[in-house]
Amino acid sequence: MLNVEHIGIAVKDFSQANGLYFRLLGVEPYKTEHVESEGVNTSFFRVGGTKIELLEGTTPDSAISKFIEKRGEGIHHIAFEVEDILKEMERLKSEGFILLNDAPKKGADNKLVCFVHPKSANGVLIELTQEIR
Amino acid sequence: MLNVEHIGIAVKDFSQANGLYFRLLGVEPYKTEHVESEGVNTSFFRVGGTKIELLEGTTPDSAISKFIEKRGEGIHHIAFEVEDILKEMERLKSEGFILLNDAPKKGADNKLVCFVHPKSANGVLIELTQEIR
Repeated sequence: MLNVEHIGIAVKDFSQANGLYFRLLGVEPYKTEHVESEGVNTSFFRVGGTKIELLEGTTPDSAISKFIEKRGEGIHHIAFEVEDILKEMERLKSEGFILLNDAPKKGADNKLVCFVHPKSANGVLIELTQEIR
Repeated sequence: MLNVEHIGIAVKDFSQANGLYFRLLGVEPYKTEHVESEGVNTSFFRVGGTKIELLEGTTPDSAISKFIEKRGEGIHHIAFEVEDILKEMERLKSEGFILLNDAPKKGADNKLVCFVHPKSANGVLIELTQEIR
């Protein structure tokens, strides 16, 4: 695990939340992106060496919409940057962590991603993320 | 906001969680500390330029014990490092954020801290933290 690449926050109203995090962090998002496959709008704010990602579900069955329905708005996941996602997935499996994907999938911000089940990590949804080179 | 100083994770069993995050992150905690005033045990793991803090409540009425009772284990807060906590508290108040303390208090890891109410930040408990110099 090289770094906390970003922290993902589930929000109901993308426009309201982008305004609020601008006032909180003092910077505009450097990127906003719609990820069709996940049914989410995302925006990214740089803070020092890491990022805050806001996520709004755009379909009722997206993971973000379901999360908010169940738990309300709030911190959704922590993403750790890795050098080699396949190697790290193998390592974590052998350590007993439960992975939510068998193979890395294409995420926002030009990344390959894989999620670790919160049940195997003290209630924390963990994302592994590797830049597509 | 200079940096994400740490991400706080509420855990039930400190010893189990320290072992798990060692296997996840590949590093031992660089510090463990009991904060009497907050009724918590804490441990800190370095990951790149930020830290993961594990928190276990040591009394039934600590904020961490109550959080776990209500929501289960999981991500508890994001701490942002600031240069001047008093100035930042004033700025956030004037932007409409609700602060949970009127004055900074002494937190773990030699820091002054102040919390922002999750109601005023899309369900996210935010900590401002300034190193005691």
